Amino acid sequence: MTAPEHSSDRPLAGLRIVEISSFVASPLCGLTLCQLGAEVIRIDPLGGAADTGRWPLTGTGASIYWTGLNRGKRSIGLDLRSESGQDIVRRLVTAPGPGNGILVTNTGGRAWMSHDTLCALRSDVITLELLGRRDGRPAVDYTVNAALGFPQITGPSDHDGVVNHVLPAWDIAAGLHAALAITAAVHRRATTGAGSHIVLPLEDVALATAGTLGYLTEVQVNGTGRPATGNDVYGTYGTDFVTADGVRFMVVALTSRHFRDLTALTGTQETVAALETALGADFGRESDRFEHRDLLTALFARWFRSHDADEAGRALAGSSVLHERYRTFEQVVRSGDLERNPLFATLSQPRIGEYLAAAMPASFDGVHLRTGPAADLGSDGREVLREVLALDDAEIAALTDTGVLAEPPRS
Amino acid sequence: MTAPEHSSDRPLAGLRIVEISSFVASPLCGLTLCQLGAEVIRIDPLGGAADTGRWPLTGTGASIYWTGLNRGKRSIGLDLRSESGQDIVRRLVTAPGPGNGILVTNTGGRAWMSHDTLCALRSDVITLELLGRRDGRPAVDYTVNAALGFPQITGPSDHDGVVNHVLPAWDIAAGLHAALAITAAVHRRATTGAGSHIVLPLEDVALATAGTLGYLTEVQVNGTGRPATGNDVYGTYGTDFVTADGVRFMVVALTSRHFRDLTALTGTQETVAALETALGADFGRESDRFEHRDLLTALFARWFRSHDADEAGRALAGSSVLHERYRTFEQVVRSGDLERNPLFATLSQPRIGEYLAAAMPASFDGVHLRTGPAADLGSDGREVLREVLALDDAEIAALTDTGVLAEPPRS
Repeated sequence: MTAPEHSSDRPLAGLRIVEISSFVASPLCGLTLCQLGAEVIRIDPLGGAADTGRWPLTGTGASIYWTGLNRGKRSIGLDLRSESGQDIVRRLVTAPGPGNGILVTNTGGRAWMSHDTLCALRSDVITLELLGRRDGRPAVDYTVNAALGFPQITGPSDHDGVVNHVLPAWDIAAGLHAALAITAAVHRRATTGAGSHIVLPLEDVALATAGTLGYLTEVQVNGTGRPATGNDVYGTYGTDFVTADGVRFMVVALTSRHFRDLTALTGTQETVAALETALGADFGRESDRFEHRDLLTALFARWFRSHDADEAGRALAGSSVLHERYRTFEQVVRSGDLERNPLFATLSQPRIGEYLAAAMPASFDGVHLRTGPAADLGSDGREVLREVLALDDAEIAALTDTGVLAEPPRS
Repeated sequence: MTAPEHSSDRPLAGLRIVEISSFVASPLCGLTLCQLGAEVIRIDPLGGAADTGRWPLTGTGASIYWTGLNRGKRSIGLDLRSESGQDIVRRLVTAPGPGNGILVTNTGGRAWMSHDTLCALRSDVITLELLGRRDGRPAVDYTVNAALGFPQITGPSDHDGVVNHVLPAWDIAAGLHAALAITAAVHRRATTGAGSHIVLPLEDVALATAGTLGYLTEVQVNGTGRPATGNDVYGTYGTDFVTADGVRFMVVALTSRHFRDLTALTGTQETVAALETALGADFGRESDRFEHRDLLTALFARWFRSHDADEAGRALAGSSVLHERYRTFEQVVRSGDLERNPLFATLSQPRIGEYLAAAMPASFDGVHLRTGPAADLGSDGREVLREVLALDDAEIAALTDTGVLAEPPRS
């Protein structure tokens, strides 16, 4: 079930957000707010921002990445170096009405659209500026992560070097923090009338998360950080196993019950009990299971090596043990899981084709909130200026004639 | 600068949220809402939930993890199997007042506190249920990630196997999605009076993110997913280099300017130009820089191998190239960066000690929103029942005498 886009039922219906952004975090913020029902107007410089042609691409060169992150938004192309282009941005952001007055950007502190500049035009404006480093220097997910410590404890324990994460986890967290901060600021404005100047450095997203989860705290309190544990889950029992036919499973025994089930299904109860006595350990305790994980893994691995993936999968499914068979993205897509999951629905995306696109993961009252396709760059300029700024045809023609406003692309 | 906790200035001041949760995602949701100014009452079963003693621990066995994720919350211990314990939960969640009526939980669809049960007591209740799998089966970050595809494309390209990410990225994204969904639902309730029944499966958080970022779309559209690229950034030029003294740098040249600067600082302009001609490539194009990254990296690596970390760091700092020296968590803590960053402030955490704890990464009007320490398990029970449910001393004594309400811990 899908609510009509911008239906008044959506949680953020009635809000209008201006986004001037590129790459992952700030476009993800805009997409998420759009899924929640806000109208998002993405403004790009003429010809598009730096991320317009970002990989992955289709065979004909269209960016799967860009269209994925900009679904549902309205698109305007403006000459942002011109005085009149900048004027239009300011007027769009500070248009009257309780739902207007919100700007999301990652383009740094440009004076012509700074919080103070906008605040002078509309005192309750809400601006969010996504930065790389706190001091405004640029940074990306990969550099932030390198400086923080995770690549040092990721990867095979015998690997001499660092392993970057592939998922841009800090960008994702930053995009969601941004959407949350905007929504919280909207709530406050509705309550007290106050606007907000929100600053969100990618670097601080990573540091705050690493702090909250204990990675930085344990160094401060205990003097050392945690060691690399390869594919083993830290602090509990969990690792990966290979079956007789070379299939890999991730297995996690978080509780005593999970662990008892894992020993039962691998037929290792007696050996594990003998080990427990000999080591003076108590495998009812999570910490003892973690401490002796290498021995336990060696025991369980024998069972996995002598059973094929189907047998292992059936045995695990019949137990309480948390488990999954490792899959590639290709296997996920070909499994039929997306078709069976109401989170996904067919999207017809111009320049890309038809594909199963995800809604936002939180459903509201059983409804998955999804948007339409990404617009072609600059295709909504005239309509938005007519609607939001009440410009007439002559005014719009003057803007396109002088090259300030991008013409909609020829189809 | 720090706003007083629960000051009326904070964006979510005046909200009261009941959290019954464990592990990472739902406690992170509660912490984040608390930083934004909401009062969060965490209810645990007697003796604590399954995550009470989770690693990392201090030398005396206190959980750095638990205290980090539960900062600022009020704590009640209740016998959740008893009728009267369940009754108190329902009364706390559905207490009258515009800020009440919000529940966050990851404990699955227990009938006695289901959305429908609570909705019968307060029609505009907002509940958020965090699930593992969509169908209610349990799942954790590691199993969700295994089933999705990232471990197959992470790690050294010559590594035969999968590499789990260490950062629980899906838990973090789920916690932030949960905080966002609650805040958006609060906004809608204030506007329309309607409550919300929000369901958020961890599995769907991962699938939606992988879909939005193109990992699942490219398989559907192009027939194949992206290959493993080791530490190389996908679709642009970026990788890690080792200096003469064995220090590692992550270097990203996102734009043509970055790339020109990188060739200049490594003195490879002529060789790169010759290569460009010989290959028929255009290194002004991001995609050509990515395609030929192995050759380019081999060239640049010679420069890094013949310079030490200080020289390399200075040269990079004098250029536009995005870069960071890889650090361990220990190096981050010992660098003094946390002391210099206003995101962090000293927190005196009972049972843990004093440490620099992070606020939320988004600052509002220059203010970093932080909370006090985590309460001891069950220490706020009497006060909360007095305040929210207006119970008198005799009623509270009856609850402690019958073992329904946990006594505050002896200090």
